[in-house]
Amino acid sequence: MSFNKQFTWPVRVYYEDTDAGGVVFYANYLKYLERARTEWLRSLGFDQSLLIETADALFAVVSVNARYRQPARLDDELDVGVLIADSGRSSIGFIQEIHRKRDGVLLFSAEVKVACLSASAFKPRAIPQEIREMLGS
Amino acid sequence: MSFNKQFTWPVRVYYEDTDAGGVVFYANYLKYLERARTEWLRSLGFDQSLLIETADALFAVVSVNARYRQPARLDDELDVGVLIADSGRSSIGFIQEIHRKRDGVLLFSAEVKVACLSASAFKPRAIPQEIREMLGS
Amino acid sequence: MSFNKQFTWPVRVYYEDTDAGGVVFYANYLKYLERARTEWLRSLGFDQSLLIETADALFAVVSVNARYRQPARLDDELDVGVLIADSGRSSIGFIQEIHRKRDGVLLFSAEVKVACLSASAFKPRAIPQEIREMLGS
Amino acid sequence: MSFNKQFTWPVRVYYEDTDAGGVVFYANYLKYLERARTEWLRSLGFDQSLLIETADALFAVVSVNARYRQPARLDDELDVGVLIADSGRSSIGFIQEIHRKRDGVLLFSAEVKVACLSASAFKPRAIPQEIREMLGS
Repeated sequence: MSFNKQFTWPVRVYYEDTDAGGVVFYANYLKYLERARTEWLRSLGFDQSLLIETADALFAVVSVNARYRQPARLDDELDVGVLIADSGRSSIGFIQEIHRKRDGVLLFSAEVKVACLSASAFKPRAIPQEIREMLGS
Repeated sequence: MSFNKQFTWPVRVYYEDTDAGGVVFYANYLKYLERARTEWLRSLGFDQSLLIETADALFAVVSVNARYRQPARLDDELDVGVLIADSGRSSIGFIQEIHRKRDGVLLFSAEVKVACLSASAFKPRAIPQEIREMLGS
Repeated sequence: MSFNKQFTWPVRVYYEDTDAGGVVFYANYLKYLERARTEWLRSLGFDQSLLIETADALFAVVSVNARYRQPARLDDELDVGVLIADSGRSSIGFIQEIHRKRDGVLLFSAEVKVACLSASAFKPRAIPQEIREMLGS
Repeated sequence: MSFNKQFTWPVRVYYEDTDAGGVVFYANYLKYLERARTEWLRSLGFDQSLLIETADALFAVVSVNARYRQPARLDDELDVGVLIADSGRSSIGFIQEIHRKRDGVLLFSAEVKVACLSASAFKPRAIPQEIREMLGS
């Protein structure tokens, strides 16, 4: 079985996301990235809460290289992308872009590396086999 | 042994707390309340992370009755109060007020009820004896 | 023109919403309430960012009376309700309930009162006429 | 006049910062970085809310390169560092490290670039002269 390597998740900007500068607070773009990665994983059939319980596996972010290009604002609709750049035995590298829906402008981009950890020991472990098969890694 | 029934914790307003309206986002006052309750408990000698591990006890909020009077703004210094209104075998009622430091104006007030839960079972349990003794309940 | 007095907005629980207790952090339910009120207003044809610009009007929360009944957890799907309890010249009273979608269990309920403010002066003002007509107030 | 190029700001981890994995949620380290940069600027005599009003200047993050090394947990005390890597006419490059206070372990590090914007037009502008003098740029 294969999977769609490009995945997009829609996000709406609410008051909670903005700051007194009138734009989305810079840390909150990382929330959007995480929602999209979570929904990408769910689209493959994996809920993170179940992965913890049934496979003792969770994904932790190891690094983020982010570029802020244009600010998102209240009520904006955003498309948050998930693209697999590379995947190994115990980590996955993502490229994630956020575009504004109404005009397609690129607002934000990031490279995000996540590692698979044992949920109980918080130590690195192999990505569960059934996920690695989906990733073809 | 007794304790000081009135406790105050200082909080500074950062960009992360504000929204596009230029003021503190309404949910974030509840973060300030929680920080102050946590520091009040710490001032009595109890860290919540230790309570979970050593006594299997955590405190969960049961109800909040909050009144928003004047908005807090970026860079404001706030005083967050903790006053015990009543305490029982398994719950504590707090009255918490937030004043602006520079002029003493009352910005926000709330009644907050918390219950003691077993951290493992997430079920109501008695407040640990050593805390109840401090509360005189 | 009339409108549907009961409105429901779906919310998914992500890592960002949870805390070390394994459940949704208590302040974050207020984010869900605000998203649902915003989408209710949008369903009537009003974006809050446009209201600020074109009508100098914004809605600020005056009071919240909230009851936490059962915790929401990671990956839960929630239904956040918006019901108008009463509406006047410059304020609206909402009753908002949050149910877990998979079994319909009531997790959280709140009465929320919002007041209409001038966005520039941050002083009370009448709710814009076109919104009041929708509310029948 | 000169200034201390190394600045440290203490941060405590509260429930609001953690997630269901039992550790600080990855986006929230960026809040800590921003608090420390804000307090560094305040230590030089500049409040951001005043900069907006009196100089029409605000600082916006352009890029973040972050490395997550060890997780911070509930109740941890952290030291958040601010070091100027380079500063130009309209931007500043920071190196920011977060250490755990009790044992000095490095938990997180980031390079953060901020640009000075006109608060009204949200366009790049020169950093106010009095701040540039402090930076020696």
